[in-house]
Amino acid sequence: MKILEQKIQKDGRILGADVLKVDSFLNHQIDPELMQAIGLEFAALFANEKIDKILTVESSGIAPAVFAGLALHVPVVFARKNKSLTLPENVWTADVYSFTKQTTNHIMIDHRFLSANENVLIIDDFLANGQAAEGLLKIINAAEANVVGVGIVIEKTFQKGRQILDEHGVRVESLARIKSFENGQVIFL
Amino acid sequence: MKILEQKIQKDGRILGADVLKVDSFLNHQIDPELMQAIGLEFAALFANEKIDKILTVESSGIAPAVFAGLALHVPVVFARKNKSLTLPENVWTADVYSFTKQTTNHIMIDHRFLSANENVLIIDDFLANGQAAEGLLKIINAAEANVVGVGIVIEKTFQKGRQILDEHGVRVESLARIKSFENGQVIFL
Repeated sequence: MKILEQKIQKDGRILGADVLKVDSFLNHQIDPELMQAIGLEFAALFANEKIDKILTVESSGIAPAVFAGLALHVPVVFARKNKSLTLPENVWTADVYSFTKQTTNHIMIDHRFLSANENVLIIDDFLANGQAAEGLLKIINAAEANVVGVGIVIEKTFQKGRQILDEHGVRVESLARIKSFENGQVIFL
Repeated sequence: MKILEQKIQKDGRILGADVLKVDSFLNHQIDPELMQAIGLEFAALFANEKIDKILTVESSGIAPAVFAGLALHVPVVFARKNKSLTLPENVWTADVYSFTKQTTNHIMIDHRFLSANENVLIIDDFLANGQAAEGLLKIINAAEANVVGVGIVIEKTFQKGRQILDEHGVRVESLARIKSFENGQVIFL
């Protein structure tokens, strides 16, 4: 997606060997026009699929997911993160390890908002090591729902997330695919 | 806002004396069409104000805020919640006590995303005891930015939030104003 790649080139900040900060338009400050364009792009990519619901994870997945939901005319459910050991009842849950923050979150979805046989599209801001998407897949399996695919705003192809999702046999569509960071520049695939 | 009041009547769940759960369309599952209508309504209410930026708090404020941002053509910044005692540098911060969860969060906004003299509209999902809105006001004051007003999706008028914001001399627009819960029913003002 050209305008997304241009935005990443212009406003993304590379930290260390493998971290890309896009907090000026996606993760802290949000560019609503860009999010609308992203939502429309996901809707076009998955136009031929039957989709009943979009799943994402708070907080940075919410903006792209709600615009995809608007374009596809389906509700959006965001999994809540919880660090505490005691979980509420009646939730689907999975553990998600963050390599960046070196913490484990429990992500949770209320049983009322994910049902057997629902066709679910996962949307998330980043695909890096695949932990969040894999956690959502685990929840979808537990609920006996069906995963239609995974829509990712920014994929770091040099980390293992794509391989993990491929092994699950899931269709993945990423709007920007980063091959590497070289001399402080983002190189797209 | 009639369609919002109807949605609250239909899908809201009253818990205990003063808690309204709207997790089927706002706080966990999100209705994107309703969020778009809410965003347009905020944009119409504040159409005569000069607005440079919208501030909200993760996670439930994000969906209404991004649609308001789209309608007003301004970026949205969501404050991040942090329970840890060590805070990153270069952030504006305020403590926000949650009466529902009985916990205190530090909310944080990076200095890069709020500047002196910017005209800021606050958007949030609920106004109850006013702690989140007051925390954002404190941050706006610290940044020497200007608050244009506060847009609230659901106000519980029987709690003290409105009074606190009135004392700050801030314009507040709430799309649904709840007077009371009576016999398991939501009564609007």
